[in-house]
Amino acid sequence: MDEIVGSQVAAGNPADAAAGDADYRAGVVDLLGILAYGGLTAFQRLSDDAATAPTLADQVMTASMAVAQFRHFESVRDHLWTFDVDVLDAMEPFHRPFDDYHKRAQAKIWLETLVSAYVGDGFAADFYREIAAYVDAGTRALVDEVLTTDRQTDYIVGRVRQAIADEPAVGGRLALWGRRLVGEALTQAQQVANERAALTGLLSGTVDRPGMDLAAIARMLTRLVENHALRMERLGLAS
Amino acid sequence: MDEIVGSQVAAGNPADAAAGDADYRAGVVDLLGILAYGGLTAFQRLSDDAATAPTLADQVMTASMAVAQFRHFESVRDHLWTFDVDVLDAMEPFHRPFDDYHKRAQAKIWLETLVSAYVGDGFAADFYREIAAYVDAGTRALVDEVLTTDRQTDYIVGRVRQAIADEPAVGGRLALWGRRLVGEALTQAQQVANERAALTGLLSGTVDRPGMDLAAIARMLTRLVENHALRMERLGLAS
Repeated sequence: MDEIVGSQVAAGNPADAAAGDADYRAGVVDLLGILAYGGLTAFQRLSDDAATAPTLADQVMTASMAVAQFRHFESVRDHLWTFDVDVLDAMEPFHRPFDDYHKRAQAKIWLETLVSAYVGDGFAADFYREIAAYVDAGTRALVDEVLTTDRQTDYIVGRVRQAIADEPAVGGRLALWGRRLVGEALTQAQQVANERAALTGLLSGTVDRPGMDLAAIARMLTRLVENHALRMERLGLAS
Repeated sequence: MDEIVGSQVAAGNPADAAAGDADYRAGVVDLLGILAYGGLTAFQRLSDDAATAPTLADQVMTASMAVAQFRHFESVRDHLWTFDVDVLDAMEPFHRPFDDYHKRAQAKIWLETLVSAYVGDGFAADFYREIAAYVDAGTRALVDEVLTTDRQTDYIVGRVRQAIADEPAVGGRLALWGRRLVGEALTQAQQVANERAALTGLLSGTVDRPGMDLAAIARMLTRLVENHALRMERLGLAS
């Protein structure tokens, strides 16, 4: 089964010699499974929280972020078909980490939802993009498309800064929230990395396929932390 | 203000002489406000209920129905701009009836959500289409687009029939639910009709613009009831 699928993939992406590699394929399917389940659960979280938005305009904006996440899920699902993989199967290994993350990082006020969408999802997105540097061009283009959230950024930044201006105390609460999100995300990422060797193999590489050495991984972590601090700063929050 | 907007509309739709009529315009804006708020609240209801779906595949289907409703909201919002009307303003008069409807017709089990989406929304859609027969071609095309739900019908019919086959007692509960939905919808429609003269004016017409007489309205009600019975029958429910 892997043999046949592997050669179909190779035929579909002739430029990517590594695509015939079963480990590589398993890693990409894992990455796509994460993106799909991440999109689906983000949809559910954002649409649930839309109901608690302070104004109808905010509800519409939150709902449109939810819908964007569901579209990402759909794009990834369609891409997984080209690997002959059902999205429900690809997502299965990631139910627990994502469900745990959403349980631990459940917003109690609507502003926390906005910070989650920008800071939490932004951190995750940076990480997925780092992995995507090591996959075939078709998958990489999909990952870039799925992780683009430019349209909502201005809205979130404006809304959070306004809220802090109106009530400075909220800044401390949201700063704590932003730091906690990243902590929870790292905890889950750590567990996923321990359990999914093929996925971490995308980063570390194989004899035939170059990856990151330890020094490169350290640099990547530095980039992730710096970008996180930048996002917190844009919201007017201490990181 | 109405003068200027009225003539802009007339210029946009030169074929529709009635579009310069302020009462006509108010009626169309009401219709669009209903469709927009109906789409937005249906999004919220379906996405909330998606979280309670029995399987992940059902959650995905329910979420995709929610997303389709949000797209309808977006289409109507864009169309309202051509009338120089903000969707938030257009929806305002319909908050109470829709919020009341959703409060009274809140699904307690996920299968009721499916019946609501097919039977409740189907009944409402038939009614909106009857009104849309009396509006300009551009608005009518939008209404048709917004009310198309073909893609989800097969899924809902299959899922509900399966559930009744698995547990026949559920058929009685869902039949009751379907009848109740239409009762609640009619209650709200009655109140909207009492309060929004311009909207009912679309149906009843004016000297310059033909509408329905009482006999035609009776025939319309008969059509609505017949279509409702047909939908209940397709689900395997007594109407």
